[in-house]
Amino acid sequence: MSDVYETILLPTDGSEGTAAAAEHAGTIAAQFDATVHVVSVADERNRFESPSAGLAGEAWDERERERAEATTRETAAALPDEVSVETAVVDGIPHEAIVEYAESAGVDVVVMGTHGRTGLDHYLVGSVAEKVVRTSPVPVLTVGLDD
Amino acid sequence: MSDVYETILLPTDGSEGTAAAAEHAGTIAAQFDATVHVVSVADERNRFESPSAGLAGEAWDERERERAEATTRETAAALPDEVSVETAVVDGIPHEAIVEYAESAGVDVVVMGTHGRTGLDHYLVGSVAEKVVRTSPVPVLTVGLDD
Repeated sequence: MSDVYETILLPTDGSEGTAAAAEHAGTIAAQFDATVHVVSVADERNRFESPSAGLAGEAWDERERERAEATTRETAAALPDEVSVETAVVDGIPHEAIVEYAESAGVDVVVMGTHGRTGLDHYLVGSVAEKVVRTSPVPVLTVGLDD
Repeated sequence: MSDVYETILLPTDGSEGTAAAAEHAGTIAAQFDATVHVVSVADERNRFESPSAGLAGEAWDERERERAEATTRETAAALPDEVSVETAVVDGIPHEAIVEYAESAGVDVVVMGTHGRTGLDHYLVGSVAEKVVRTSPVPVLTVGLDD
């Protein structure tokens, strides 16, 4: 391990859970003078899960990517001003794309909420967070809604 | 949430996973000038799981408690010298006792290894860590062996 946290990955889906995680990522980043990578995933499964409302696949991808980009900007804006921020949108299946990003960017820690956009998360740890905890090559700080 | 981490809970079972977690707890504690509570659980289930080797229940409890105390001292000694440390042994079922301690002591974050003393943990997140992540009232930093 490194002696300090220089790079923090903050996956975002724009949920309340992300907002809680962002507070912790901001606190740690400010303390360690670290850079926060705010990353959202353009979920390639969404086009198949959505009602086929006449949208061509390409248009659907574009819309999903725009959503992801907007989410990334919003979360980045919520971090303290003094914190260095990088943003990215990656395509894939959320937990896989998050772990791949953590590996390729060499982040020191992942900070993520346990209450994501999907349902059921009020009594279970978020399914994305759980999968990231299981497979992450680096430590993961999971943050609930009340933390 | 608080703006800083003042109190960190480091549950210990003396495993390699604890050693990896202790490094991160020490790093965070040093940075935030926080106190680390090193807590080990005298597992009240162990007496029932052990082969009944003629040990009376009371003697078994005492032995389990001594193991827990020794583990706590060893983990505390592995933390950086400049870090404030408190130690405790609590009785109970590990994940429940850890969450109860986090609540009653008002810790700001739990730092724990995903590779505990029980088997199977080399490919799954540790079962104790997973249950703590699911039920903890405060953020949990999970640390694997290679982190």
